[in-house]
Amino acid sequence: MKITKAVITAAGQNQRTLGFQTLVDQDGIPKPALRIVVEEAVRAGVEDVCLVVRPGDQEAYAAVVGEHAARLHFVAQEEPLGYGHAIWCARGFVGDDAFLHLVCDHLYVSQEADSCAQQLVKVAVAEDCAVSAVQAIRENLLPYYGTVGGPRVPGRQHLYVIQAVIEKPTPTEAEQQLVVPGLRAGHYLCFFGMHVLTPTIMEILGERVAAAPAEGGQVWLSPALGQLAVRERYLAFEAQGRRYDIGVKYGLLVAQLALALNGCDRDEVLAQLVELLALRR
Amino acid sequence: MKITKAVITAAGQNQRTLGFQTLVDQDGIPKPALRIVVEEAVRAGVEDVCLVVRPGDQEAYAAVVGEHAARLHFVAQEEPLGYGHAIWCARGFVGDDAFLHLVCDHLYVSQEADSCAQQLVKVAVAEDCAVSAVQAIRENLLPYYGTVGGPRVPGRQHLYVIQAVIEKPTPTEAEQQLVVPGLRAGHYLCFFGMHVLTPTIMEILGERVAAAPAEGGQVWLSPALGQLAVRERYLAFEAQGRRYDIGVKYGLLVAQLALALNGCDRDEVLAQLVELLALRR
Repeated sequence: MKITKAVITAAGQNQRTLGFQTLVDQDGIPKPALRIVVEEAVRAGVEDVCLVVRPGDQEAYAAVVGEHAARLHFVAQEEPLGYGHAIWCARGFVGDDAFLHLVCDHLYVSQEADSCAQQLVKVAVAEDCAVSAVQAIRENLLPYYGTVGGPRVPGRQHLYVIQAVIEKPTPTEAEQQLVVPGLRAGHYLCFFGMHVLTPTIMEILGERVAAAPAEGGQVWLSPALGQLAVRERYLAFEAQGRRYDIGVKYGLLVAQLALALNGCDRDEVLAQLVELLALRR
Repeated sequence: MKITKAVITAAGQNQRTLGFQTLVDQDGIPKPALRIVVEEAVRAGVEDVCLVVRPGDQEAYAAVVGEHAARLHFVAQEEPLGYGHAIWCARGFVGDDAFLHLVCDHLYVSQEADSCAQQLVKVAVAEDCAVSAVQAIRENLLPYYGTVGGPRVPGRQHLYVIQAVIEKPTPTEAEQQLVVPGLRAGHYLCFFGMHVLTPTIMEILGERVAAAPAEGGQVWLSPALGQLAVRERYLAFEAQGRRYDIGVKYGLLVAQLALALNGCDRDEVLAQLVELLALRR
């Protein structure tokens, strides 16, 4: 398996202006958030990026990715039929290749020399199968996440065989189907917003898109990933890093602080922080 | 004097995307930066706002100001002929009225119940003349600011009669022409990005625009304000608050932190800050 393609979804209701928000990256360079996401993919070896956008947003997005414009391909999600449908829109771009999937509203700070996407791609290539990045999350946060369950791969600390996927499970569902032996009590493996997927996911999504009009019209990703786990080997990898959702309130602030405190301008930003905190209110 | 008009300049090279950056304001409401600037004017009593933009930017700006769209008037600065020229482009909107002038890339956090623009407008109305907001700045920062000199208004703590205006003065120029008696040693009064101006400024700018082709083509504001001080009473007011330039590196981060730490979400943001600082790198 070789990963040279990435699919980035940016067609969600709240995602339209996020890509244009300016952040200073860990190297101290101001750039639009979308460019940071694209560079996460490129650093992991990706050569071509497919951006799934709302119709009409292509031009604005092309303008913000700078030097990466040449590797950008656009696909419009003509109707807002769900996250799974958005990924399925990129089936022509994906063809018969495995691909990296990122969402446009998450930024990552790695705790290792390899970026989070690099870590994930290396695992997928070595294991030659689909792998989703996950992180252990406390039970009380389950209402916000897609969650997976399954046993640890013998002898591997951060790798699990996915047997079940449930989007925003209830505590009971989680306890009955998603407990992962060896994980801290009350913790579950939740999606990290970053996946390496095989073309099989496009088949599965295609079946769900065909059935969707009868089932309410929306096609989501988590149920399709649950089917993927049935059809082929599908792993979860605990990435060594943190993810920051820039789409929530103060998400941009927290992401910018995390980038700055883990980047080349740490001392300068810490000094400004102390100065601000010292001001009389 | 009654101030019901504001002119906001947003046509500068680096200013085009700043207005679209999302920030959470002191009331905890996420909104584009431009809307925060417009609301600073509206809270000070302004009814109509003229936004000076680059040709073609009107529609994008109108989309981000939300409920204030009805009070927005657009003027395009057809050629980038300088900051003073940009303000002069709003002469038709201003007519014979005094007006509040704000720049689109500065946000303010007041240390009083009145916002910074409210403080400034109250002083201008009471004194019935042009007033620029200023702040005392250490000598080493003079290369970044327009600076004024003149004596304190007798019996008034934060009010000065402007006698000279120099843009980015050298230390020698400052020492010879801009020392303000009573100010801390090594400190000067620098513009705060916020002015109440009389229509006289449009006359002066018009003269400078007419002369500009012979003088290199650019028309700046500070020399025009220097002439204003000669023609009529023109005061400087030390506003009680802080200004944040969102156009500099980490400017958005610092402004967002200042808004949050002085707003309704202070405790929540402090908690997130502590959590981030506590993370292992």
